[in-house]
Amino acid sequence: MQNLFNRRWLLASYPEGMPVPDNWVMDKQSVPDPGPGQILIKSKWLSVDPYMRGRMSPASNYTKGVALGEVMQGGGVGEVAASNHPAWKVGDIAESMSVGWQEWSVLTPDVAGPAGVNRIDPKLAPIESSLSWLGMPGMTAYFGLLDVGRPRPGDTVVVSAASGAVGQLVGQIAKLAGGRAVAVAGDDNKLQWCREIGFDAAINYKKTADLVAAVKQACPTGVDVFFDNTSGPIHDAVMKNLSMGARVVICGRVSLAGQFGKPDIGERFMAQLIVSRASIHGFLIFDWWHRRDEALRRLAAWHREGKIRFKEDVLEGIERMPEAFLRLLHGKNFGKQIVKIG
Amino acid sequence: MQNLFNRRWLLASYPEGMPVPDNWVMDKQSVPDPGPGQILIKSKWLSVDPYMRGRMSPASNYTKGVALGEVMQGGGVGEVAASNHPAWKVGDIAESMSVGWQEWSVLTPDVAGPAGVNRIDPKLAPIESSLSWLGMPGMTAYFGLLDVGRPRPGDTVVVSAASGAVGQLVGQIAKLAGGRAVAVAGDDNKLQWCREIGFDAAINYKKTADLVAAVKQACPTGVDVFFDNTSGPIHDAVMKNLSMGARVVICGRVSLAGQFGKPDIGERFMAQLIVSRASIHGFLIFDWWHRRDEALRRLAAWHREGKIRFKEDVLEGIERMPEAFLRLLHGKNFGKQIVKIG
Repeated sequence: MQNLFNRRWLLASYPEGMPVPDNWVMDKQSVPDPGPGQILIKSKWLSVDPYMRGRMSPASNYTKGVALGEVMQGGGVGEVAASNHPAWKVGDIAESMSVGWQEWSVLTPDVAGPAGVNRIDPKLAPIESSLSWLGMPGMTAYFGLLDVGRPRPGDTVVVSAASGAVGQLVGQIAKLAGGRAVAVAGDDNKLQWCREIGFDAAINYKKTADLVAAVKQACPTGVDVFFDNTSGPIHDAVMKNLSMGARVVICGRVSLAGQFGKPDIGERFMAQLIVSRASIHGFLIFDWWHRRDEALRRLAAWHREGKIRFKEDVLEGIERMPEAFLRLLHGKNFGKQIVKIG
Repeated sequence: MQNLFNRRWLLASYPEGMPVPDNWVMDKQSVPDPGPGQILIKSKWLSVDPYMRGRMSPASNYTKGVALGEVMQGGGVGEVAASNHPAWKVGDIAESMSVGWQEWSVLTPDVAGPAGVNRIDPKLAPIESSLSWLGMPGMTAYFGLLDVGRPRPGDTVVVSAASGAVGQLVGQIAKLAGGRAVAVAGDDNKLQWCREIGFDAAINYKKTADLVAAVKQACPTGVDVFFDNTSGPIHDAVMKNLSMGARVVICGRVSLAGQFGKPDIGERFMAQLIVSRASIHGFLIFDWWHRRDEALRRLAAWHREGKIRFKEDVLEGIERMPEAFLRLLHGKNFGKQIVKIG
């Protein structure tokens, strides 16, 4: 592939606080050749997700960060352009969290687990779905809510970042489980969408003077399951409204993207936990990867039956990767943020 | 009982911050007569426990507080002096969390649950044991550790307030479960006792410049179970040393007794929870009351077999109830604080 070029976004610097466009720099390399057992894919869609903030750090979080000068990590889906692997042929569609922010990527299908390569059936759903409701965010919503949050019929389930990739699915799965779903987001249009897909109540945290009271009003019998994608003030307000035996799922902390790595100072809620006999659970989807098929099969069936709907927010062009990611961190995306590649 | 007097400690005022002796006032009343279905007991031993700080408040915590002018709530054990209940006769020994800080108490045996009355067999153990290892604190250690903390053989179990009523039992039960027990307390004598009863390591948090490093050194493979009786700086240091899948049992918050009712501001550990896939559980022994017999039967057997030992800290005289309670809040007791009554 020597006569083609691969445009890539390299990490140029570690952000202090909120990332800025200058943290990345684009370069242009020859398209690489796949080694033995490898495949080369041409990216069709790339994903931006909140977890990427954690990778922009020299510190090891749950996995190690991106080194300066390395291609920015991220998931993507593309078409096989060359294959040295017997199970893959040119034209197949491959999705992986190992694609990176680049136009061309060499992948190793025999790697197991989250860094591995998934075969995507383009007849099942648009291939970009493998980056959202039929992929990692879908699994996150499915296992985080059902296995960690464990909603019972009648439970009130509060979701922060409710119109995001994970949040919109959490609300709809909560409804399928017989729960009452309450959306929290910072934009009335997003909340309108949440109501359209089945959320029973919606709170605009940016327009609410007393968020504790707003949660109480939306959840008169208390919050049984809190699926927390944001941390910050929403977390604080919900923690003061827990019901007896409530489960809090800590999935993400996107509101703290601007203070990554710094201590998160604020109110602790140990008294509330005792009074409510509630529990807080740190959750990472990697632990459920071996059950990926279960989640995706059910999500696909629900989608086919019209029981779940999904909104994407699409930008176009590899040039816009930093912009797409920063939109996400600033809550400017409406639905799952993805980028269509040339 | 008209010719006898009952000395009682009434709550005189609600403390701002740490309670002080003036928060109570002693009065002297005629000994009351039991009504239908009731018994009168003469207190032999009264208990002071950290939970009583929560009752010195007009706010409802997990149960309502003591009103000003009411007898201070607390558990005790005594001898039946008069009975209007067919199952109880004079001379029987009764233990209850409804005794209060007084010399004589009218109890209603048919009340179920934690406010009820337990029959104590004086041949089984000294009757004051019913206030400690063979009573509520024993149950708290047993269920809090085994049902909530769920230690596996080989787990490292860290216990704060490790020489206290609950802490010393948690460490010994952790050893019986095949775990490694690490004591945290603020006094070398207390920690020496912890080592004598089987704790594998001990940390004096008052003498440690870097508590995070001290916990790391004592727990080189991380903390699998954290049984937290204190909150505060010990909590903070242990939370930075959690192992994968760690369970944190929030049992008490005695280090915050001086700021009761105020927000607990400090570092939150949601990132650590995600990285460690750890969970925090609010725990209240009342939820396990229906399994009281299971815990006490096993604790009695372990004690008989010499597998658990227990230290009490005894003061004498009803006059000393506030002193005993304040000793406890200030960590000056060494072992379970109880008061022998006349």
